[in-house]
Amino acid sequence: MAKAARQFALGVDYGTNSVRALIVDTADGAEIASHVYNYKSGEAGILLDPKDPNLARQNPVEYVEGFYKSVQGALRKAKKLRGFSPEKIVGIGVDTTGSTPLPVDRDGTPLAFKPEFKKNLAAQAWLWKDHTSYAEAAEITEKAARFGAGYLAKCGGTYSSEWYWSKILHCKRTAPKVFDAAFSWVECADFVPAFLTGNSDPLKLKRSICAAGHKAMYNDLWGGMPSKEFWSTVDPGLAELRERCAFTALESDQTAGHLTAAVAKKAGLPVGLPVAVGAFDAHLGAVGSGIKPGTLVKIIGTSTCDMMVAPEDNPLPDIPGLCGIVPGSIVPGMFGLEAGQSAVGDIFNWFVKYLPPSGKGDPHVVLTKQAEKFRPGQSGLLALDWNNGNRTILVDPLLTGLLVGQTLHTTAAEIYRTLVEATAFGALTIINRVEEYGVKVEEVVNCGGIAEKNPFVMQIYADVCNRPMKISRSAQTCALGAAIFGAVVGGVYRTTQDAQRKMTGVKPKIFRPNPAAAKTYAELYPLYRLLHDAFGTRTFDGNLHRVMKDLIAIRNRVRK
Amino acid sequence: MAKAARQFALGVDYGTNSVRALIVDTADGAEIASHVYNYKSGEAGILLDPKDPNLARQNPVEYVEGFYKSVQGALRKAKKLRGFSPEKIVGIGVDTTGSTPLPVDRDGTPLAFKPEFKKNLAAQAWLWKDHTSYAEAAEITEKAARFGAGYLAKCGGTYSSEWYWSKILHCKRTAPKVFDAAFSWVECADFVPAFLTGNSDPLKLKRSICAAGHKAMYNDLWGGMPSKEFWSTVDPGLAELRERCAFTALESDQTAGHLTAAVAKKAGLPVGLPVAVGAFDAHLGAVGSGIKPGTLVKIIGTSTCDMMVAPEDNPLPDIPGLCGIVPGSIVPGMFGLEAGQSAVGDIFNWFVKYLPPSGKGDPHVVLTKQAEKFRPGQSGLLALDWNNGNRTILVDPLLTGLLVGQTLHTTAAEIYRTLVEATAFGALTIINRVEEYGVKVEEVVNCGGIAEKNPFVMQIYADVCNRPMKISRSAQTCALGAAIFGAVVGGVYRTTQDAQRKMTGVKPKIFRPNPAAAKTYAELYPLYRLLHDAFGTRTFDGNLHRVMKDLIAIRNRVRK
Repeated sequence: MAKAARQFALGVDYGTNSVRALIVDTADGAEIASHVYNYKSGEAGILLDPKDPNLARQNPVEYVEGFYKSVQGALRKAKKLRGFSPEKIVGIGVDTTGSTPLPVDRDGTPLAFKPEFKKNLAAQAWLWKDHTSYAEAAEITEKAARFGAGYLAKCGGTYSSEWYWSKILHCKRTAPKVFDAAFSWVECADFVPAFLTGNSDPLKLKRSICAAGHKAMYNDLWGGMPSKEFWSTVDPGLAELRERCAFTALESDQTAGHLTAAVAKKAGLPVGLPVAVGAFDAHLGAVGSGIKPGTLVKIIGTSTCDMMVAPEDNPLPDIPGLCGIVPGSIVPGMFGLEAGQSAVGDIFNWFVKYLPPSGKGDPHVVLTKQAEKFRPGQSGLLALDWNNGNRTILVDPLLTGLLVGQTLHTTAAEIYRTLVEATAFGALTIINRVEEYGVKVEEVVNCGGIAEKNPFVMQIYADVCNRPMKISRSAQTCALGAAIFGAVVGGVYRTTQDAQRKMTGVKPKIFRPNPAAAKTYAELYPLYRLLHDAFGTRTFDGNLHRVMKDLIAIRNRVRK
Repeated sequence: MAKAARQFALGVDYGTNSVRALIVDTADGAEIASHVYNYKSGEAGILLDPKDPNLARQNPVEYVEGFYKSVQGALRKAKKLRGFSPEKIVGIGVDTTGSTPLPVDRDGTPLAFKPEFKKNLAAQAWLWKDHTSYAEAAEITEKAARFGAGYLAKCGGTYSSEWYWSKILHCKRTAPKVFDAAFSWVECADFVPAFLTGNSDPLKLKRSICAAGHKAMYNDLWGGMPSKEFWSTVDPGLAELRERCAFTALESDQTAGHLTAAVAKKAGLPVGLPVAVGAFDAHLGAVGSGIKPGTLVKIIGTSTCDMMVAPEDNPLPDIPGLCGIVPGSIVPGMFGLEAGQSAVGDIFNWFVKYLPPSGKGDPHVVLTKQAEKFRPGQSGLLALDWNNGNRTILVDPLLTGLLVGQTLHTTAAEIYRTLVEATAFGALTIINRVEEYGVKVEEVVNCGGIAEKNPFVMQIYADVCNRPMKISRSAQTCALGAAIFGAVVGGVYRTTQDAQRKMTGVKPKIFRPNPAAAKTYAELYPLYRLLHDAFGTRTFDGNLHRVMKDLIAIRNRVRK
């Protein structure tokens, strides 16, 4: 029997530090070629301000350059394989970090492309992890609560400094020239498909429901974006801007447009290829990890994104502290639930950058080798994983790290392990929160750099959460998820679920909880939660005397 | 006019890691020769147990060896100077760490000298910083409180695991063979003069009021040691032992005996030299720093000892949390007040040992160079200085370190500075406590390794405490204090104060508080105190939400 002609999809994944292009076989998700372009500007692609640790921007020139370089690289590799040719690509999907909004002019051109704004930090893309607008986030939260239209119901009750409107408001207040010059603000996830397809008019370009719904309080319940009337209570500038950001947001199985001749030629792709509506990297990572009802997908990298989906036919309660519950934001036709931790790998990276172990070799490997020898509780240490604030469930970027239990003998490896455990406790706090609100977590599938490469971390997650930890088969799930939507808009599959069933899976190796370790962590978690509530909430009222005492008691027992 | 014949005194100072012999001119305290013997056993003289970070012992063989080696070395150097000969030495004073008790046999010979106990950790000297007996300390505290005889009144209301009876009780419970073989237990400060003079019979040897009064609940108010009846409520073994530890404790202007021919010959000293009753290093450091009413002397080394004296004619209130208020324990004829911090330099040493900066050179110097550039509050960090527990004012060895405020940009130097600041906040807490109870601190004189060598630390102490920090003129104040008592028992001076006036002083360089820094620290201190009370007391009841928030607010203001 003659084999059907192979068809390929292209996924382009814009991360915090790089862009990855991935070409996959639509039949089974086989990843035939990929190429990574590392951003060249700033520090690993991030523009920083030494005077303000909250600031993190990105030069949008990199988004254009990154598309060409990554796609050209992937095509170069794919062309060496039998059965591939660029003409067999059926569609393109795109995912990016977010909320990463950038100011654009009337034509949709980023202000950062113009000479007068080229070096202006406020005119760049405001990277998801930029926390400069914490005051504006608090103000929007407070005013939205007072306005009473329920705008915060779908984003956990608190509007974040990581999100669209906070950033725009902070721009207006601190860089009014940039604000005034901006006709509209687009998410990076909307900018890339707009640029690829030439549909860049801010009033018409196809915007992502995942960005708008999770980060911009967009919801059909109240007619899209919060009303002009509401924005007038916050700032007249935003009330005006709102009219230039009013649109219908779409799911990623929709086509944003078709590849322009200019881009196609330069990239080496067929002209007119369908490009899916963009989405956030994490959401497409969930799709690429086979997310379905009951499955929690955790993307664990510098930060985490924790996602679930639920059928739209059963109404879901609003869940306090979650980043969002948005119809169609992950898998079209289902509620997408998003939660996350502001820093995970970033905390481990912070530690090895500023407190590196002596000796040669990858500091993570050196510390892991020592840290994996300790039993849970043995160090007597406990930490909060808040070096970059807390996203879920406290939604507070102005929280900081905490380490307790140090003696005169505490080692670097013990601290390193404790930081890993702290992020695991943070992960458990998210699982507990969704389950308290009736969303059962039946399976956890992990993906992202840490899930992929770090069995030490994954075992601790299994032990702390007392659940098996599965790992997504693909090492590039976000790009795979993007390619899945490339396949859908390319017409290979009728639904996203059909594509997922064929193109995703998990690895045979599953990290299963060790009962003894899980038992000790079950004793440590209430202490974590005590610190969490004492430092993270205004409602805690009590005493912390037991924290050091219990840690010592557990330590002494474990060491025996 | 012919100059009077010069007279010299010998002070021998037994520290945690070494013994120092110092020969001084009794006329003006000029230090003409000194020699240090570093202990050879264990880790820098400390016998450790990798399974128990609380354990710290010392081999008493080192005390004998250390005497000969240090004195011989000092004499060798002094003999090269014109006007010196060993015959011109008039007396010897001795100070040691404490409470550092060791078990001895009927003749006063340490059990550790016997083959069967040589390698037994329980038969060695239990170094001051050994915290293995925390449970016994809690038990003694509780039973003494219940017994109602006021035994804890002079030691801050809590009996410590660093002290004599806790250690002995822990020995009985965990190493009964050693306990049974011990006829009595002597402090290192009593053992050395006993060995030098041959007066080693445990029932007769001259014991130090400073050791007994501050660490063993010895007080004339209740007839010396706590009664046999009391000890029966704790443990019958201690009730029996009490009879073999019943003695009259003496001040250091008293003579413990005279140098034996054997020791004199081996050391190269005149036979029959008077040897003063021993005392703790810190107390004699205070004497060598010119302590007088109104002067707080801080000895800042691996830990601190904070001392004051007050005239005995005015009764002093009991001060909660102080290590002790004992007549004659520092300067004969005055109340001696002792407080302290369990770890200061030890915390900085911990940090550079386990989290060393990369690059060459002394890590303390490297970190200090960076850390001194930061303004107070700039890091947004705050720490508790409890890596080795808290001596004053919480008297709780089972407390641990805490660091809060870390971001993804926190540097090693910022943490290092924060640890220094934490110890300064601990120092201020002690000053506040004594002043709350009516003992005015009019002057602070610092001595010890850190005061001597570390202007960075001393400036932070001045800024945090908002008081000038003076530095003792001598770099070897403990040995000088011992030599002062050598001069007193040698008959050169009638009183200790007379000797102090001639033989002590402060350096011209005084660290004065910077008003701007003091202002910021005055904002940070309440946050330190909040953490202190929340984690260190059972009575705290409240919320810690402001801690991270206030630290960020101060950080943001300072960075502007």
